Amino acid sequence: MNPVVVQKYGGSSVATTEKIARIAEKIKRRVDQGARLAVVVSAMGDTTDYLLELAEQIGSQERGPELDLLLSTGEIVSASLMAMALNRIGVPARAFTGREAGIITDTTHTKARIRRLQTGRIKAVLREGSVAVITGFQGVAAGDRVTTLGRGGSDLSAVALAKGLKAGCCEIYTDVPGIFTADPRVEPESRLIPRLSYEEALEMAAAGAAVMQARAVEFGQKYRVPILVKSTFEEGNGTMITRVNHRRRSGSNLEEPLVSAVTGSGQEAKVSIFGVPDRPGLAARIFSSVAAANINVDMIIQNVSKDGRTDLSFTIPADELKRAREIASQVAAEIGAAGTAFDSDIGKVAIIGIGMQSHPGVAARMFSALGREGINIEMISTSEIKISCVVRKSDLVRAVRVLHAEFGLSRKPA
Amino acid sequence: MNPVVVQKYGGSSVATTEKIARIAEKIKRRVDQGARLAVVVSAMGDTTDYLLELAEQIGSQERGPELDLLLSTGEIVSASLMAMALNRIGVPARAFTGREAGIITDTTHTKARIRRLQTGRIKAVLREGSVAVITGFQGVAAGDRVTTLGRGGSDLSAVALAKGLKAGCCEIYTDVPGIFTADPRVEPESRLIPRLSYEEALEMAAAGAAVMQARAVEFGQKYRVPILVKSTFEEGNGTMITRVNHRRRSGSNLEEPLVSAVTGSGQEAKVSIFGVPDRPGLAARIFSSVAAANINVDMIIQNVSKDGRTDLSFTIPADELKRAREIASQVAAEIGAAGTAFDSDIGKVAIIGIGMQSHPGVAARMFSALGREGINIEMISTSEIKISCVVRKSDLVRAVRVLHAEFGLSRKPA
Repeated sequence: MNPVVVQKYGGSSVATTEKIARIAEKIKRRVDQGARLAVVVSAMGDTTDYLLELAEQIGSQERGPELDLLLSTGEIVSASLMAMALNRIGVPARAFTGREAGIITDTTHTKARIRRLQTGRIKAVLREGSVAVITGFQGVAAGDRVTTLGRGGSDLSAVALAKGLKAGCCEIYTDVPGIFTADPRVEPESRLIPRLSYEEALEMAAAGAAVMQARAVEFGQKYRVPILVKSTFEEGNGTMITRVNHRRRSGSNLEEPLVSAVTGSGQEAKVSIFGVPDRPGLAARIFSSVAAANINVDMIIQNVSKDGRTDLSFTIPADELKRAREIASQVAAEIGAAGTAFDSDIGKVAIIGIGMQSHPGVAARMFSALGREGINIEMISTSEIKISCVVRKSDLVRAVRVLHAEFGLSRKPA
Repeated sequence: MNPVVVQKYGGSSVATTEKIARIAEKIKRRVDQGARLAVVVSAMGDTTDYLLELAEQIGSQERGPELDLLLSTGEIVSASLMAMALNRIGVPARAFTGREAGIITDTTHTKARIRRLQTGRIKAVLREGSVAVITGFQGVAAGDRVTTLGRGGSDLSAVALAKGLKAGCCEIYTDVPGIFTADPRVEPESRLIPRLSYEEALEMAAAGAAVMQARAVEFGQKYRVPILVKSTFEEGNGTMITRVNHRRRSGSNLEEPLVSAVTGSGQEAKVSIFGVPDRPGLAARIFSSVAAANINVDMIIQNVSKDGRTDLSFTIPADELKRAREIASQVAAEIGAAGTAFDSDIGKVAIIGIGMQSHPGVAARMFSALGREGINIEMISTSEIKISCVVRKSDLVRAVRVLHAEFGLSRKPA
């Protein structure tokens, strides 16, 4: 029997019934070629935002089972319609809710984590030659209440099901042809990356290149599920995310770029606390307050202290600035800091590449390239496969393009 | 402990989040008075029509589990929002899907019948002092697939739950103040009927006074569930539907009208087959063909036969005329009838009242009143508590008003 393939279609791919019908035709061709398919669908277009808007109109701040039940309807609509579209053209198909599909989660409503998969029912449907159409983004917790997996959770549903069904590949269909060396709207010279490691894909997701949900990539990495990101309606090979980038590892081509991609994000803000007394525990005090408010801190910089005091800066998502401002001002007063500053006029540019971890010269080359262009670097942070710099927001586009050219990403691959 | 009350809010009552929030406030007042409430909600406004439209865009003719899964989302949205609206104002509430509520049906998708109720979970929620909010219109069949109960099915959900929860009353909230002696849009003098028997309510539902689903009234009758129909947002006592109309039975007031209501419906069409050979089995042949097409026949008239042939007329819902025309023409040819005629220009007027069954003069009075107004009667049918006449559609409004006055329904009750 042919191996199972899991496909996932995002919200923009299933935004209209006409698109759903077109995807059904695509699926039919694959089925006719002998594929056994489990198809995960997101909610149509902006449905989830619309449902959140209804909850907001109600004035509800709940993030519990009722909100999850509400949000789960979006994917149920698209999964039912997809199964009906398939049946109509002679492809036997059955729609599954997350519960019916056996996606068992913990009880952390609105951002539940998958505990285990009971894929017996899906397997039975696949065995009898039908397509299983599964609602993305949702599962069921102990006590039989519906849960959702957080934004972008349909990617996670798909990768998890690929593991549960021992699928050969998890195909993520989206409205772009794959993952690019830079955002094509910023850098017209950007190119599709044919192969990418989980690590690189993860760093890109974290750096704001929103092609795939980071948790889904993590899951794929943990369970070694090959993930193919490609366009729903355009032809092309897409980007294959796998465990290692064999081509590069082999070192057969010394001209091979060390850097895989450049990302830029303007959705950041910077918080600075000046004159923090240089005593143990004060940094922990600051960041535990920020964490308690569920604000994600990205980069942190602490200067060498002078006169027993130090300056401390960190970046956060720009839409958390209001709350972060309140918290930072309060904490600064409590610990006797000299003052605070807030800046939402920043951008973050990053280079990512698994090949650069053994090449210390890469960072220097990045800073020089930015410097030559007169782009001031305000903060720096590095990981094994990523170097990020905070720059003025007005310099962001230029920074992306300079680095894209500097690391040879605009050239045709050999 | 106070008895449980089941409330049901229809689609127009929950059409917007603002209305849902207003209903939540109403529920809060009842809860504050000590009531234990199970609340059944329909889909918001035209949601079900919109979902059907999506299925139609897909081109699907399916009437199976996928369509039911699709349609079930409408009520899930309103139930979640209602529970969230209640929680927001401090009324603990939990939303239940039909499956979670234990509404077990047969597998007749899109018009499933309720097999049994497993109300343990709802009872547990009510016991702990929370409001149970339940999706109307849906259940779950063997094999765990979602089913729906057919148009107006939320009424049935509510009445069935009232039985399952041994509720003191099933309150049906709608956009009118109750059931009227005639459609107020047709007869400005019409009055609210304070009490009505199940039999009368059933005949009215069948006669086209679309306040409640007939199956729900039948269910209430069978299990003696008192049903109170009243306005969602306006004050008033509404119409109580119970087993017997005690007030009238007592006979304490001889002036009490025998006729409870007049109904008029323009949604009918007439099919006539002329010169049907007068042989046993031919009528059965005709009506089994019509029934096989799932077309509801309402009135049937067969004239006394002449020369071994007879004429046969029957009425059907106007929107079934196209299919009925095909069937009737085919059957007429097969049985050697002389010809057919089709007429969608008819209206049906009916008087309904449990008090009139022992008063044969009522029919004569009805015919005389219509005759005096020059309204021609084309067909007549009678049941114990209803007399229906087919008239020209152009005479329908006048016929309703004449009969409303004739039977004293415009007068203030004593």
